[in-house]
Amino acid sequence: MARAKRSGRRSGKPDTRAEILAAARTLFAAEGYEPVSMRRIAAEAGVDPSLIHHYFGSKDDLFLAAVELPMDPASEVEAVLRGGGTEEVGERLVRAFVAVWDGPHSARLIAVARTSLSRPASSFILKQTFEHRVVKTVEEILGDQVDHLRVRAGFIASQVFGLVVTRYILKFEPLASLDAEQLAQALGPTIDRYLTMPVEHLVPGA
Amino acid sequence: MARAKRSGRRSGKPDTRAEILAAARTLFAAEGYEPVSMRRIAAEAGVDPSLIHHYFGSKDDLFLAAVELPMDPASEVEAVLRGGGTEEVGERLVRAFVAVWDGPHSARLIAVARTSLSRPASSFILKQTFEHRVVKTVEEILGDQVDHLRVRAGFIASQVFGLVVTRYILKFEPLASLDAEQLAQALGPTIDRYLTMPVEHLVPGA
Repeated sequence: MARAKRSGRRSGKPDTRAEILAAARTLFAAEGYEPVSMRRIAAEAGVDPSLIHHYFGSKDDLFLAAVELPMDPASEVEAVLRGGGTEEVGERLVRAFVAVWDGPHSARLIAVARTSLSRPASSFILKQTFEHRVVKTVEEILGDQVDHLRVRAGFIASQVFGLVVTRYILKFEPLASLDAEQLAQALGPTIDRYLTMPVEHLVPGA
Repeated sequence: MARAKRSGRRSGKPDTRAEILAAARTLFAAEGYEPVSMRRIAAEAGVDPSLIHHYFGSKDDLFLAAVELPMDPASEVEAVLRGGGTEEVGERLVRAFVAVWDGPHSARLIAVARTSLSRPASSFILKQTFEHRVVKTVEEILGDQVDHLRVRAGFIASQVFGLVVTRYILKFEPLASLDAEQLAQALGPTIDRYLTMPVEHLVPGA
């Protein structure tokens, strides 16, 4: 690790911080957390490594800043559910999900996914976010109309996370090349079924 | 890294190699590839680190030896398909899949999954295995009865890989606690639908 002398505050261009974040997101998305050194991020951003320490501190701090989710997943789900109840909700959910993952934040989301799946500590954060924010939001909105939402949410997550893995991480074809509408028509009915099938026998303690 | 003197061939107990492999699988499954050092694997196995170099060479070599798949996925799929054609094939596939992933090789399979998803080089190996071995086997057996199997296999993979992620990696509840029969009943019809739904409009170049 280079040990540049710390001689007071560095000035840096106003967008140096943004350039470091963009470089970190690109590298973390392509390779995951562990193999990417601070030095390579600095090279990618075209700045001195000491500037990364100046702006972000440790590699962990930089990662947390880099992968800050560009949107709140619970709010996204809420927007889909409030825009039409349970009518074809599967198709609407897949369409909205793919729009976000295909959008300008795609690299950042893939970085979060790779890291969340490879490291138990990050898996735990993802699990907490899902169980305590997303499922809770679904229960608040649909709790009066649909029973056992926690069980159903698990099955829905299994299909949605599977789409992330096969389309965005493993890039299986033709899944990776289909558009949002094609994916919504193919996967939407699966989600609708998980929202309507009998699940009494799958409830813990039942 | 400890530099134990290499003083000729070590004897070691006959099962030292197996103990090192078991320790490596346990640690890789729990934490992924990158964070696990040779030194920790040696400590877990209760052997001197130099013995790992003696038996396996590099950390990459040890990983490849440790994650060697305990079964051939193409053969597993073939057994399911030959044992009853397309009749409730979804339920049979899920049942067989969960039996393998819940079985004695569980830790090893989870280690492969974590690494395959976190590192592009490993993702590539998994993608190759799926596209060139598994899909090919499915086409050989079902090609006369089902059209556009490559497209259908992608959707089936999205549900099956999603089960791996949510049940075995993220451990969402109650998914992680359900038994093979419950999962087969819930997820089987999804796979059956992907084998029978119209997909002409999803075929590349169509």
